[in-house]
Amino acid sequence: MNEQWPARVVIRRVRPEVECGRFPAKRVVGQTVVVEADVLADGHDSIAAVLRYRYENDEAWSEIPMDALGNDHWRAEFPVEHLGHYLYTVSGWIEPFQTWYEGFLKRIAAKQDVTADLQIGTALLKAAAERATGNDARKLQQAASKLRADDVDEELAALASSYADRSNATHYKELRVAVDPIKAQFSTWYEMFPRSYGTFKDCEAVLPEIAEMGFDVAYFPPIHPIGKSFRKGRNNSTNVEPGEPGSPWAIGGREGGHKAIHPELGNLEDFSHLVKAAKRYNIDIALDIAYQCSPDHPYVKQHPEWFRHRPDGSVQYAENPPKKYEDIYPFEFQTTHWRSLWEELKSIIEFWMEQGVRIFRVDNPHTKPFDFWEWMIRDLKKKDPELILLSEAFTRPKVMYRLAQVGFTQSYTYFTWRNTKAELEGYLTELTQTEVREFFRPNLWPNTPDILHEYLQTGGRSAFMARLVLAATLGSNYGIYGPAYELCENVPREPRSEEYLNSEKYEIKKRNLNDPASLRPFISRVNAIRQENVALQSNESLRFHEIDNNQLIAYSKRSADKKNVIVTIVNLDPFWRQSGFLKLPAEELGIDVRHPYRMVDLLTGAKFMWQGERNYVELKPKEVPAHILRKES
Amino acid sequence: MNEQWPARVVIRRVRPEVECGRFPAKRVVGQTVVVEADVLADGHDSIAAVLRYRYENDEAWSEIPMDALGNDHWRAEFPVEHLGHYLYTVSGWIEPFQTWYEGFLKRIAAKQDVTADLQIGTALLKAAAERATGNDARKLQQAASKLRADDVDEELAALASSYADRSNATHYKELRVAVDPIKAQFSTWYEMFPRSYGTFKDCEAVLPEIAEMGFDVAYFPPIHPIGKSFRKGRNNSTNVEPGEPGSPWAIGGREGGHKAIHPELGNLEDFSHLVKAAKRYNIDIALDIAYQCSPDHPYVKQHPEWFRHRPDGSVQYAENPPKKYEDIYPFEFQTTHWRSLWEELKSIIEFWMEQGVRIFRVDNPHTKPFDFWEWMIRDLKKKDPELILLSEAFTRPKVMYRLAQVGFTQSYTYFTWRNTKAELEGYLTELTQTEVREFFRPNLWPNTPDILHEYLQTGGRSAFMARLVLAATLGSNYGIYGPAYELCENVPREPRSEEYLNSEKYEIKKRNLNDPASLRPFISRVNAIRQENVALQSNESLRFHEIDNNQLIAYSKRSADKKNVIVTIVNLDPFWRQSGFLKLPAEELGIDVRHPYRMVDLLTGAKFMWQGERNYVELKPKEVPAHILRKES
Repeated sequence: MNEQWPARVVIRRVRPEVECGRFPAKRVVGQTVVVEADVLADGHDSIAAVLRYRYENDEAWSEIPMDALGNDHWRAEFPVEHLGHYLYTVSGWIEPFQTWYEGFLKRIAAKQDVTADLQIGTALLKAAAERATGNDARKLQQAASKLRADDVDEELAALASSYADRSNATHYKELRVAVDPIKAQFSTWYEMFPRSYGTFKDCEAVLPEIAEMGFDVAYFPPIHPIGKSFRKGRNNSTNVEPGEPGSPWAIGGREGGHKAIHPELGNLEDFSHLVKAAKRYNIDIALDIAYQCSPDHPYVKQHPEWFRHRPDGSVQYAENPPKKYEDIYPFEFQTTHWRSLWEELKSIIEFWMEQGVRIFRVDNPHTKPFDFWEWMIRDLKKKDPELILLSEAFTRPKVMYRLAQVGFTQSYTYFTWRNTKAELEGYLTELTQTEVREFFRPNLWPNTPDILHEYLQTGGRSAFMARLVLAATLGSNYGIYGPAYELCENVPREPRSEEYLNSEKYEIKKRNLNDPASLRPFISRVNAIRQENVALQSNESLRFHEIDNNQLIAYSKRSADKKNVIVTIVNLDPFWRQSGFLKLPAEELGIDVRHPYRMVDLLTGAKFMWQGERNYVELKPKEVPAHILRKES
Repeated sequence: MNEQWPARVVIRRVRPEVECGRFPAKRVVGQTVVVEADVLADGHDSIAAVLRYRYENDEAWSEIPMDALGNDHWRAEFPVEHLGHYLYTVSGWIEPFQTWYEGFLKRIAAKQDVTADLQIGTALLKAAAERATGNDARKLQQAASKLRADDVDEELAALASSYADRSNATHYKELRVAVDPIKAQFSTWYEMFPRSYGTFKDCEAVLPEIAEMGFDVAYFPPIHPIGKSFRKGRNNSTNVEPGEPGSPWAIGGREGGHKAIHPELGNLEDFSHLVKAAKRYNIDIALDIAYQCSPDHPYVKQHPEWFRHRPDGSVQYAENPPKKYEDIYPFEFQTTHWRSLWEELKSIIEFWMEQGVRIFRVDNPHTKPFDFWEWMIRDLKKKDPELILLSEAFTRPKVMYRLAQVGFTQSYTYFTWRNTKAELEGYLTELTQTEVREFFRPNLWPNTPDILHEYLQTGGRSAFMARLVLAATLGSNYGIYGPAYELCENVPREPRSEEYLNSEKYEIKKRNLNDPASLRPFISRVNAIRQENVALQSNESLRFHEIDNNQLIAYSKRSADKKNVIVTIVNLDPFWRQSGFLKLPAEELGIDVRHPYRMVDLLTGAKFMWQGERNYVELKPKEVPAHILRKES
């Protein structure tokens, strides 16, 4: 107890708040942050609550009055217009004038004598006048000087309340929201091995095609010199033939390490030229950050202190006992020289940022300390808040979530392994409807060079179409390992393996990307639909809907104003026609059940006249296994 | 970044944790506190986690290893044996020896050469030996001196791990649990107006009857002198006849205030005698703490600074505009003299604690500041942790919960107004299966002198029996406004009112408590069942079960060892026979579906042979509207 009268207002459960305020929530520039809180006090006095916020570089706080929604729950929102961090908090206090005013109105209504009440009101107005300045002070003083019942109105109450005594206000702790560029939330990734195209110049030549397909991120596996010691051959063989190129993730050779370019791809100038050319197509070149070395990496000799050593003095290679990966040396993060190691690792990303790169896909972040990522990402984003880092952590859920909390902008998910209706509904609901959505931005991939799921292996072209539509409409961020996906490559290295046969990880692949069977036109259409429909550019509005067939999954996304409503239905059975009755929640989607309405399939142009909440749907996998329906108003 | 290597282990979501650790969780003495947490790290190293705890008056921490339950979730538990506070937290660290040991086993299994591994193991053992002392140090040193593959076993790994390097351990913040007496969790209340019995001596005479009915708390409305100014007459009339006794909540008169006894009840000595006599029956006399004054209370003249004054200088009476309560002066908590007021209010409870009272029912705590309660209850419990305070706040849920958080031991609930199956299931699930249960202990009352629910007004004797069984089996704490309940008094002051006609609040009532129609035998039976069945003495195990009739509600409680399983079924329809099929979860309740099992109705002695999960139930309200079934093993 201090001598000042203790504050009476309680503020709790402010949302968003990640881990008791330990981490910022995430938004993208141009959004509004909806803040909710419980604000309450003892007794029956009126209380006021405001949302306070400021951009991290501004000194002054802005204030927005919060609305009481009932049950002591309050809400307000603020816009985030700049990249970086915003601070926000909630303050609340007792409002004696408003309390008095509400009681006064009831007394007037009950025709009671209000002489004494007017005297009390006068005293409150005088006190408010003393806190006010200028014209407001004069107005309040004037009202106080001869207060009659008729003078008391909403306007006077509002004016007096705006000069409430806040000396006993309660202030919640300060929370943060991290504001990222739009592409953090809405991006379309195309993974490609540049060496399969030839050089960076050859890559530049295919930019128009990638852009035409609707991709805005072209992600390259590592572009650095590749080690020769223990180099892996075709299909990950330990017997390597002369001339085999090796895995790009075996980083570092005679020609340099993480800051060097594989000589067969070109030089730094070529790379910068490519980055600039891509930007003209609104394509970001995303680089792979794999913090590991081949035995030939210059670091190994220059900085032995960054590696673990075996009793015989050799460097400890990567292991997952009893498996040994002798072509890869992991960094020893727990070295006593961790400071210099961490600085060097950070400088790698800084180096590529200097070449114009702003998006990175980070390989296996879950095998490096959380504190390292938190420190590095904070530092890098201070330098350029445009930075986007995709976490490639296929590991336990809490580890994946923690990486998102410590700063990763986007994250790979389990989507690749979620193929049934129940799996998809459960997982996407967790990602988009729980507190996870405040910090974890999913990036959905139906395939990667490491993962060719059995569903794609066995389901054929229809499976590739279905999984593409799912990724592209469930997730505002999605990506494909492009050339292999376009051509529906689906042969695994061996039965039950998820590895590709003749994987591009170990060899250079020349493909006929103009194959008439290619999915290119379909992919282009799906990506165009994403571009044209704002509903598909975020995930918060995702809702699954009842459909009486377990092989059909149905869900909607809508814009905040409900003007753009997209209903997607996918046939998960790649072999058979499936049909069922879909039930849509009319009010939620702005459907007028009294009149028929038109649903236009954006994939095929087909139009359906629907009525009410229940309508028939039928999908033939050999034609198009999905509807992406837009409700026409 | 400091120079020490940053900790790699993350500890989050420790449970129980109330409001980010702001408030203690609650337990009763003799329980164990189950602590769960997410403990995780980057990579694949083994980690260890311990639960650390200490009693507030002890200096040393005890440590219990936590069990990994999978998915990075860990659990351990500790016993709470003393009243007061315990501190607890979780620590976690990387275990290099265990990590090494697990890899070693895999290499041995794969028949790999382990020469280098033994050298690494030797170094780890030496480091552990340096941290160890005595015999353990010798053992580790010896193992390190000539380590062979055969020497490496579980035991050595455990020994080495017990001397792990904890210098980089992660420590969670310290949390608290408040440990209360058993009656905080399991108590049976009987509310009675002592003046209706005569004097304290007359109350003493009925103690055997109250004990025989199975009550262990006798709660008295205020026993203080009653004001004469604006005294209320029969049925709350403002016209008071000479000789009418007034409401006991209009505290304070010529004879004294909150520390005085109404002369017609006896004196302080009589009261202490009664308290002691009650203890012999294991009955606590609970007093009512109503922080408010009649206009005749000595405080009004002695401490005008503790009240609000109207412009004419008179003391502000209680109001709920346009209603006026001129017989009650509330304290002005927001006075500049709040310190002396708070101290005086605390001294009232201290005064009655000195007379041997340990349980108080606090009137309208929601109209006094949270900070006041938190400060006062903390202070009082330091003096005597036996103290139990029941919060009588019938107000908005978040206010009720906050009062529990700031220190109230038990709380009145909305139970009185939850009468349908859906209402009861929803509300009790919130109270017993969400985080609310960590701090809010419900005390269920089917009636109070202020609340005679329509269900009791219209449902007759059967309704009284049903609501009693619900309160007594859903809530380990419950109470009745006793004499009125026993006799099934059910006439409201007027239609739609929840007030009793000729309420005992305003008059002295003489009743024939030996009326043969009295519920006394039934109440005694129900309370005896509570005493004999540990399952009914706490709420955490409460689960509702499917029964295909909306007028039948079914639920179970069980002891931790499942040896005591109680299934209660209540017919909510006071007029008609209802029947249905009950479905019990076999595994959860330890039912062997292969064999029939016996269910004994503890209310009637009837025995039923049931089999499997689904069984038939039928209840006739005019006989007994409930089963309290014990599963016989």
